[in-house]
Amino acid sequence: MNVNEKLKEYAKTTEEALGKYIPSADCPQKSVIEAARYSLSAGGKRIRPALVMEFCKVCGGKPETALPAACAIEMTHTFSLIHDDLPCMDDDDLRRGKPSCHKAFGEATALLAGDALAIMPFEVIAKAGLDKTISAEAALRISQLLAELSGFEGMIGGQTLDLEYENKKPSVSEILEMYRMKTGALLEFCCRAGCIAAGADENKQNAAGKFGRSIGLAFQITDDILDITSDEKTLGKPIGSDSENGKYTYVSAVGIDKARERVKQLTAEAKELLSEFSDTEFLNELADMLAERSN
Amino acid sequence: MNVNEKLKEYAKTTEEALGKYIPSADCPQKSVIEAARYSLSAGGKRIRPALVMEFCKVCGGKPETALPAACAIEMTHTFSLIHDDLPCMDDDDLRRGKPSCHKAFGEATALLAGDALAIMPFEVIAKAGLDKTISAEAALRISQLLAELSGFEGMIGGQTLDLEYENKKPSVSEILEMYRMKTGALLEFCCRAGCIAAGADENKQNAAGKFGRSIGLAFQITDDILDITSDEKTLGKPIGSDSENGKYTYVSAVGIDKARERVKQLTAEAKELLSEFSDTEFLNELADMLAERSN
Repeated sequence: MNVNEKLKEYAKTTEEALGKYIPSADCPQKSVIEAARYSLSAGGKRIRPALVMEFCKVCGGKPETALPAACAIEMTHTFSLIHDDLPCMDDDDLRRGKPSCHKAFGEATALLAGDALAIMPFEVIAKAGLDKTISAEAALRISQLLAELSGFEGMIGGQTLDLEYENKKPSVSEILEMYRMKTGALLEFCCRAGCIAAGADENKQNAAGKFGRSIGLAFQITDDILDITSDEKTLGKPIGSDSENGKYTYVSAVGIDKARERVKQLTAEAKELLSEFSDTEFLNELADMLAERSN
Repeated sequence: MNVNEKLKEYAKTTEEALGKYIPSADCPQKSVIEAARYSLSAGGKRIRPALVMEFCKVCGGKPETALPAACAIEMTHTFSLIHDDLPCMDDDDLRRGKPSCHKAFGEATALLAGDALAIMPFEVIAKAGLDKTISAEAALRISQLLAELSGFEGMIGGQTLDLEYENKKPSVSEILEMYRMKTGALLEFCCRAGCIAAGADENKQNAAGKFGRSIGLAFQITDDILDITSDEKTLGKPIGSDSENGKYTYVSAVGIDKARERVKQLTAEAKELLSEFSDTEFLNELADMLAERSN
């Protein structure tokens, strides 16, 4: 099993499907569509859609059954990156080594492209329920879950805490709760949605959800570590932007050694949860890869 | 039938339900929740939820069946107002006579409050399908319709055209197409969603959709007229902001007399479509009221 090869395969499937979901830019409002396509195609490892499809698979479903949910979460993730980069948020000029969406298309168009990508996932999921790719109940559950985990009490809530804690010194537990919401919630969605698409029971959904939260936390802490230890070329964005933006991270709170240890521990905890599923080699290797990544 | 009394009744029902849907602000991320509540409670006539519930009623359903869809569209409408007022968009300091969301809560929090209100409608609709307030199929259709009519090819597309046409002189048909997307699409949603919630057939859905588009167009043209003829106190926002923002409107294109005539014609066309339904006194009077409003 080569985890990178398998990731690339899932990424290709996702990118092809995303290209079909987004309407053609052959219309008067093409700027917003081109901006959305630009950010959606900016690459990245497409870890979220891979998790959705793989959890569907390890629950005995066909990965393609979960493809609409996989595309949905990639749209939600991309919307959050576009809005996060805006001047009133992190004010980042670069994203994955390329100009961020508002640098390439202007602020207003980037705002609207993000808005459209926040909405479209629910169209994709509803269609999958109506055309019976997944059951109507599964479509409603996935839609509800995505809204919950990306809204006030999930991702958006976490981004709000990120703003609240700027130039403050939140406690370690406040930092971890912010990470759970900001990053963990969407990864929890991925793992749960794959199980729901496969028709798996609640035990499996809960184990998958915990797996997602654990690797999400490990992922965010690794982000903090890389912000200090990487270089701009490898990371695709400026180094040290956290402290420059007045952000007090888990690494600033506990130090880099303890942070690295916590990533290992979270990854081990996540892998234990995989005993609920069969054929989990890819998920095991993916968890390790995420903990050891350099960008 | 007093149309204003009936509107107030629907508004009260909607506001009570909205208050329950939005989570309590008793949490660390309270700023984003307070910002959303602030904008949601800023008033307005709540025409959109009234249309949703009334179309459910004139199709033989109970208005409350359509309450989740009614709340959903009010959230979507509010999200669009919050983002529309942002400095990178229309840069409006006032909304309904009160400071706009970003003036009251800061730009970043307003952006996130808008994002959360763009997402939450789909949670509300999915829940209504899961708890059987409406059928699973109706929930999926309403969810798909809302995403379509508010996304790239609906409201967001229309807002993009609004930006594209700034300081330009679009043709009359380009202006009308922009209005159809920017304003008509959400009103089309309201009328169709009410029919779907009631389980009405496609004939009724289509007639309702056309009614929504016609009054939506009339509504937007009336907005243009009021931007020239009203005063700041009555309108709750500065007068002449269209021409100040470099916006070339239907009124600038055809003149105020022809614009007024078009509003009358669109209203008459809309009212004819109501023959598909029974007990349409309120909808008839509402169409007239919208054409004759002063704010």
